[in-house]
Amino acid sequence: MVMKEEKVDQYIKKIDGELWLVEDDRENLKVSYRVKEIIFVEQSPFQHVMVLDTYDFGRMLVLDGVVQSTEKDGYIYNEMIAHVPLHIHPHPKKVLIIGGGDCGAAREIIKYPTVEELYFCEIDELVVKASKEHLKGVSAGLEDDRVHYLFADGIQYMKEHTNEFDVIIVDSSDPVGPATQLFEFDFYKNVFEALKEDGLMVCQSESPIFYKETMQNTYESLNKLFPNVRQYTAVVPTYPGGLWSFTLASKKYEAFIQPNYEETTKYFNKAILQASFALPQFMLEDKK
Amino acid sequence: MVMKEEKVDQYIKKIDGELWLVEDDRENLKVSYRVKEIIFVEQSPFQHVMVLDTYDFGRMLVLDGVVQSTEKDGYIYNEMIAHVPLHIHPHPKKVLIIGGGDCGAAREIIKYPTVEELYFCEIDELVVKASKEHLKGVSAGLEDDRVHYLFADGIQYMKEHTNEFDVIIVDSSDPVGPATQLFEFDFYKNVFEALKEDGLMVCQSESPIFYKETMQNTYESLNKLFPNVRQYTAVVPTYPGGLWSFTLASKKYEAFIQPNYEETTKYFNKAILQASFALPQFMLEDKK
Repeated sequence: MVMKEEKVDQYIKKIDGELWLVEDDRENLKVSYRVKEIIFVEQSPFQHVMVLDTYDFGRMLVLDGVVQSTEKDGYIYNEMIAHVPLHIHPHPKKVLIIGGGDCGAAREIIKYPTVEELYFCEIDELVVKASKEHLKGVSAGLEDDRVHYLFADGIQYMKEHTNEFDVIIVDSSDPVGPATQLFEFDFYKNVFEALKEDGLMVCQSESPIFYKETMQNTYESLNKLFPNVRQYTAVVPTYPGGLWSFTLASKKYEAFIQPNYEETTKYFNKAILQASFALPQFMLEDKK
Repeated sequence: MVMKEEKVDQYIKKIDGELWLVEDDRENLKVSYRVKEIIFVEQSPFQHVMVLDTYDFGRMLVLDGVVQSTEKDGYIYNEMIAHVPLHIHPHPKKVLIIGGGDCGAAREIIKYPTVEELYFCEIDELVVKASKEHLKGVSAGLEDDRVHYLFADGIQYMKEHTNEFDVIIVDSSDPVGPATQLFEFDFYKNVFEALKEDGLMVCQSESPIFYKETMQNTYESLNKLFPNVRQYTAVVPTYPGGLWSFTLASKKYEAFIQPNYEETTKYFNKAILQASFALPQFMLEDKK
């Protein structure tokens, strides 16, 4: 049997008349999303950037052929990387995001009235532009004078700042290509230095099932620097394995607080906050 | 471009020399698993049954081309459908499983010494046979005199039993084909009748993201019958959406207890038990 297949874009195929994004960055698992429409496609100096409208996940941001964020489930990841640290720091004024080009985490952070300045350091301006124009289900609501865009390299930016931020959120893509250094000890050390003496940080630390080593290395690096390090998890349907880990590292604060913020979340709530720190048995045993 | 593709089995393709299971039961999302070896394949009177050895998920049970359980992540689902009810019923002696042909839930239940009899009602004997022989990573440890196999129709079996079981676990496949009736009110009513006056049941109730209606219908049906109905969730990487719902319905008991059992779980623990009942905001709002 021969299937009729035609390349529409580097990452999009037309198979028997239907458009499909075939995510095949992994050797042994391929996920194919049926595409309604290619909304945006452009090569930036850093990567291949697309916004697609899909049947199952609505619009999605795709970088180098890999799904980053979707209208259907992107809020889960973004709420969990943003609200957890802001329910622990009692008075976050100056917040930095590194990465997070889909704008979803930034949108959640500015729901907190205590936040006076949000520095948004994403290396690729095109990702932010594409997300703001074409991925409003994830990015909408970010128009706010407190947001300062820095289209710069987060690695370099961290080297140049000391004792400045209350909260730093490292919302990186996978540790391949340019993002690799965002998972290294030297970077975390600079993050530590860039935080105020009572500051805290959070980073996405990959799948506990498929990228266990990355998760463990992250934990170990941060544990050498910060007195309080904890992992938590959330479900991200469009990431491989579904279960995703985050690592929180704090110089001082640990307890959950009840901050004043606009409660318009779809996944996060106080019960989920508590529950996300309950780790599956295999994650606990990896630490022994 | 034309890809070289050859059908090896109804559900397995050889693409450019590599074996792939292409799970394409959903119209807009296809997941392809690279296969090392086809271990077992046979058509039963009920369905097409396969055990495959895959690169990413180890061995997997595949029914009618849809992944049911894998060595890599099957324990999550099975532990969560088995241990949660057995941490609520204080003295379960007679337990029934309907479905659960991969044998994983049954294996977890017999870890409880209070359980005197486990009735295992799976319609398709071939699934149990294939799992016991070829899917030991999920099924091993089930050799126990307390297990009584009933290769029978669970719908019919429930009509014939009254006031008999302490715990009933409905571990069904998706509500298509023969499993459809396992999601209907009449079936739940018979389950209610088959439970003792302090009995409780749990069922898998599909994805809160992709099969919200099924989940809600299950909740509503059970809510008409039982005084205590609660949903909980777990992550199941190989199920669409990753996040999966379970519904627990109890005639009497609600609180968590600390039963005596052999603690050899890989996902479940007491923190996860508590955490699994913390529902994402969108699930709470669906109930309003």
